[in-house]
Amino acid sequence: MLVRAFVPAHITAFFVPVFHDDPLKAGSLGAGINLDKGTNVFASIETGTLERHVHIAFNGEPVKREKAIISYSVADRLVPEDFLGEVEIWQYFDFPNGYGFGNSGGGALGTALALSYAFGGTWLKAAQLAHEVEVRHKGGLGDVIAQLSGGIEVRLKAGGPGIGVVDNLFFEDYLVLVIPIEKLSTKEVLDGDVVKAIEVGGRKALEKLLKEPKPERLMPIAREFAERTGLLTGELLELARELDRVLKLPSSMIMLGKSLFALVKEKELESAKTLLNDLNVPYDVAGIYEGKPKVGRWIG
Amino acid sequence: MLVRAFVPAHITAFFVPVFHDDPLKAGSLGAGINLDKGTNVFASIETGTLERHVHIAFNGEPVKREKAIISYSVADRLVPEDFLGEVEIWQYFDFPNGYGFGNSGGGALGTALALSYAFGGTWLKAAQLAHEVEVRHKGGLGDVIAQLSGGIEVRLKAGGPGIGVVDNLFFEDYLVLVIPIEKLSTKEVLDGDVVKAIEVGGRKALEKLLKEPKPERLMPIAREFAERTGLLTGELLELARELDRVLKLPSSMIMLGKSLFALVKEKELESAKTLLNDLNVPYDVAGIYEGKPKVGRWIG
Repeated sequence: MLVRAFVPAHITAFFVPVFHDDPLKAGSLGAGINLDKGTNVFASIETGTLERHVHIAFNGEPVKREKAIISYSVADRLVPEDFLGEVEIWQYFDFPNGYGFGNSGGGALGTALALSYAFGGTWLKAAQLAHEVEVRHKGGLGDVIAQLSGGIEVRLKAGGPGIGVVDNLFFEDYLVLVIPIEKLSTKEVLDGDVVKAIEVGGRKALEKLLKEPKPERLMPIAREFAERTGLLTGELLELARELDRVLKLPSSMIMLGKSLFALVKEKELESAKTLLNDLNVPYDVAGIYEGKPKVGRWIG
Repeated sequence: MLVRAFVPAHITAFFVPVFHDDPLKAGSLGAGINLDKGTNVFASIETGTLERHVHIAFNGEPVKREKAIISYSVADRLVPEDFLGEVEIWQYFDFPNGYGFGNSGGGALGTALALSYAFGGTWLKAAQLAHEVEVRHKGGLGDVIAQLSGGIEVRLKAGGPGIGVVDNLFFEDYLVLVIPIEKLSTKEVLDGDVVKAIEVGGRKALEKLLKEPKPERLMPIAREFAERTGLLTGELLELARELDRVLKLPSSMIMLGKSLFALVKEKELESAKTLLNDLNVPYDVAGIYEGKPKVGRWIG
């Protein structure tokens, strides 16, 4: 049996981390965008071996348990103890790891959905497990519930699926320009001093956005958050300013990666591409992904 | 400006009504299926008249306020008081009204989404308003939150959007056969003595389904609920039994209409159609609609 799941990449515009001993009550407030590129998980389940085997691969390369602790933890909970067979979980990421695209949440949720589809379970239970494992292993706080919701999302009440509350903005035909420059460790940022500025700035940003809940306000609010917290500085800030000269809405920083993103209309794309090519900076363009992740039997 | 919204038809398999003075806390427990046919709402907004006008039409025919109190109530709240112009809301239903397809919820939610898209708002606020108006005017208790969730849904915690909790079942490639026979007044049923049997039977059904949350269990559980509550009787029950002879999973009654539904595989469809044609009974076939309703600018 072969099952495929797709989970959108999720980029965070601003956030407030909310910690809690109960992982389902931990999460984040904030806002972000789901992309039509992201994580594809293929789960192959074959019975008939003498032992229970679970293997995970990232982009075609097998990974050790220590390097994929979140996905292995999800699989350990969903593949029955007494299952005799071979479970292979192939995860493919459209964006690089560590740049703020929610790959960890995508891998966790995609694995949970695919294995629950194969071995039994429900959407909510699968999503809660993915969230719980993400929180325990510090993969992320809000990606899973945001990825479930799709579109341009606003996390109004922190928590995992079934507990947190997510709203969505209406939007017109925007594309998302993303510019991944360098990795940034979420763990290090959240363990550092900047976390206080993030909490204060994130709450202010949410309050402002809710007064005028539309994408055209999201971007300047996100940019203000990124600069005031001191996360967006130096060369990355300079690059954002360069971009602003050719775009209508301000660009901002992806939380948390040394990466930028911008909402652009089709007609703005050419000048942005020319600029980025001239600067020799890598970029990608994606659509906004609406609706829920996908899971189903894979034929082909 | 022309905005289009699509909301899936929603059929309820079993339910427990939950009443509450706060409409956002009122709702239902239960399970149901969202279809890829349903309600299309086109909202046309033209400025430049001297007064504020709101007109609503069902299937191309203008309807009076008394006959469309739910949709007019939604529009009254979303079209700004000081708006000078013409708002026309054209609702088209793929299924007949009063047969249990959630047309009322579809019209309310579709109108709320389309007008919020045009005049400002968010998904959650639009959905909460639609739910609130539905509950106040006894259009339905659980349709709106079920329609937001898509797929085969299970309402675990009653309440409106942002308060109620909905789960989803995984499913394979089923089609939904629907057989609308006669109207049934939700209001009359809920005001009658049967409501106690519904409450007891609905809770039992939910408990059973959650032990084995899959479509193959949903159908027999729904059928047991329909018969034990005394809602499925007489000729409709006889028709269900006829259908069972040609289908793998039992058929059941749509809550609340004098209508039947069944989950069928493509290969079962032919014999079911032959039977229904022989009996001269009307039917329709739809796919299961996954994901959220749609809303966006409509370019003709």
